[in-house]
Amino acid sequence: MNNLWGIENLPYGVADTPDGGAQVVTRLGDDVIELATLANSDNMRKWARTFGHSSLNPFISQGRSSWSAARAWLQAILRDDKRKELVAAATKPLSEVTLHLPVQIADYVDFYASEQHATNVGSIFRPDGAALTPNWKHLPIGYHGRAGTVVVSGTDIVRPVGQRKGKDDPEPVFGPSVRLDIEAEVGFIVGGETEVGTRVSVDEAGDHLFGVALFNDWSARDIQAWEYVPLGPFLGKSFASTLSPWITPMEALESAKIALPTQDPQPLDYLRGDGLFGLDLQLEVRLNDTVVSTPPYKTMYWSPAQMLAHLTVNGASLRDGDLFASGTVSGDERDQRGSLLELSWSGKEPLELPDGTKRSFLEDGDTVTITATAPAPGGGRMALGEVTGTIQPARES
Amino acid sequence: MNNLWGIENLPYGVADTPDGGAQVVTRLGDDVIELATLANSDNMRKWARTFGHSSLNPFISQGRSSWSAARAWLQAILRDDKRKELVAAATKPLSEVTLHLPVQIADYVDFYASEQHATNVGSIFRPDGAALTPNWKHLPIGYHGRAGTVVVSGTDIVRPVGQRKGKDDPEPVFGPSVRLDIEAEVGFIVGGETEVGTRVSVDEAGDHLFGVALFNDWSARDIQAWEYVPLGPFLGKSFASTLSPWITPMEALESAKIALPTQDPQPLDYLRGDGLFGLDLQLEVRLNDTVVSTPPYKTMYWSPAQMLAHLTVNGASLRDGDLFASGTVSGDERDQRGSLLELSWSGKEPLELPDGTKRSFLEDGDTVTITATAPAPGGGRMALGEVTGTIQPARES
Repeated sequence: MNNLWGIENLPYGVADTPDGGAQVVTRLGDDVIELATLANSDNMRKWARTFGHSSLNPFISQGRSSWSAARAWLQAILRDDKRKELVAAATKPLSEVTLHLPVQIADYVDFYASEQHATNVGSIFRPDGAALTPNWKHLPIGYHGRAGTVVVSGTDIVRPVGQRKGKDDPEPVFGPSVRLDIEAEVGFIVGGETEVGTRVSVDEAGDHLFGVALFNDWSARDIQAWEYVPLGPFLGKSFASTLSPWITPMEALESAKIALPTQDPQPLDYLRGDGLFGLDLQLEVRLNDTVVSTPPYKTMYWSPAQMLAHLTVNGASLRDGDLFASGTVSGDERDQRGSLLELSWSGKEPLELPDGTKRSFLEDGDTVTITATAPAPGGGRMALGEVTGTIQPARES
Repeated sequence: MNNLWGIENLPYGVADTPDGGAQVVTRLGDDVIELATLANSDNMRKWARTFGHSSLNPFISQGRSSWSAARAWLQAILRDDKRKELVAAATKPLSEVTLHLPVQIADYVDFYASEQHATNVGSIFRPDGAALTPNWKHLPIGYHGRAGTVVVSGTDIVRPVGQRKGKDDPEPVFGPSVRLDIEAEVGFIVGGETEVGTRVSVDEAGDHLFGVALFNDWSARDIQAWEYVPLGPFLGKSFASTLSPWITPMEALESAKIALPTQDPQPLDYLRGDGLFGLDLQLEVRLNDTVVSTPPYKTMYWSPAQMLAHLTVNGASLRDGDLFASGTVSGDERDQRGSLLELSWSGKEPLELPDGTKRSFLEDGDTVTITATAPAPGGGRMALGEVTGTIQPARES
């Protein structure tokens, strides 16, 4: 069996079943297990109802104790020799199912939590100023993105068109983006609705963090550069963002939790607490068949718990299926940068690919795939679901 | 009868019915008419199914021809003496029903389409630079806001807390916002889903513009000022935005359509076309019982059709229930400014209220109400649904 997808992993996804309809599935090795089917044959009506949907949202809405109970039931049945046939009857080869967007996304927020990424981007976009803005180490900077264009891994990405204005252009020009980029990120799926006007503290964040996904925040740097002052990124990002088909439960990542890098200056009280942690996720970015970067999530400055506490400190409520992403993951080394903007230093240092071609930004037909592993609870490594997408040419209208 | 709410108006809302459940309603004078009830008794099963929901989304999803057909049916039945009793049986006094958020908001985008507002804010926030950023007259600047905190008119607004850093603060401080503001805006509800990778042209925009609402984009200026560089507004806005309970169909606003102000420089081709229009909506902002501003929507620089074409030009898809708002409506005159930031010029020129108190920003207990009228199809004026909210004190945690 593929040990990256063992019994200590068990991510959740949504797949079409051969007999029609979609249901929640998990992955074991190179198979998927239909969880509504399995729960039905195991006479677990609660789980059959929970998992018999085309999104994880009904499960997510049940809260942390249910997340834990479902995982315990699932691990128990998979370890139980007496129920082997039930499991076999609910198992399909991964290659035979279609995986869908696993979560109906409510609101999507993108953070900017890597000091190395923010420093690199600041140096490139604002060469005459300080690389980090004065607020950066005081709060996790973030902004809302377009939830309706979050697509599942494997969805083709049509090259966006729009306005751009280079330094030498007297007027803005219109056309396909010529600086199409990726952002290798980690996404966090939120569950447990809260009321408008209330906050979630860093210590309560664990009750609302359902699971982790890989995420590619495709970015048109030329569109973004022209539009983003003063109200932030809009069309440079909103054409598509790709989510992995598998959501890894937070409970499976206990062994991946590590201390954060030192935060200096110490943040304000509402960003401090016992619930802070980093995650030792090792990302890998492949452009076509070449590994171009290996971003280490452990270098991220802000904890997911801090991002969630910040997001709600003003009283903003949470909905089941909210997604917040970390922002681009970039490490200290050049080959740990999570965007082509940084890898090619805005085109000044193009990447050379084994076929002899060079890349500063993406060309039509390019395929980008982000994968990641984490320490598994029983030792060794486990995988997160991959995110992949291929660039299609821009459309005329 | 209250002529502001006549048969040429007929906005849509959602109300609780005395016998349980919520359904789509319209307003006529000071009454509401339950549309699922009316359709049932008129043997119009299609409309009964369409309107028997707790949001307008199923209706919005049916597209422009259905929007038009439903309005024609409704106007015909209201003009038909033979069906008077059916109408009477579905009618309730407005004072006896509870109006809900009428639309399940998919994505929410806020534009910045008033030249006067952008100029005022630019002058206040960036006194040393040009008031308008170089991109402002080339594209309708916008950003995504938090859909999950759009609340219906009448919902109390809890004063947000967060970080701010004044010029004289050596470090950011934490606490309730001391510069809580309003933004008087007009919102547009979108219908007719599109695919990721496709665009909606200015000439096609009419097929996707379902209706118009009033909108108050509450803003914490101190939180916003500290956080918004480089990725735009986040917590300064996301605590709450208030939508009117009534959505006025675009078809009711034909008489309100006017030419846009001159656009110079001429925008790029994708922002030009026959579908451009302004709207002659006259807004009024009351702080407690005092009219503090009368912003004229007719001064807005960008057409709703341009905003929608811009929003989708990069291939971003639309979903039923998407909401985009105009940004603050401010006219040329001081008493036409749609925010307290502008009315008090960032606190330098406080407003004096009749009770002798002064206001630069909102105090706890203040109530802000935005109303508006438009030319009615048959002559005279008709009303849009009001937006109101009262500030509650910040919460300790």
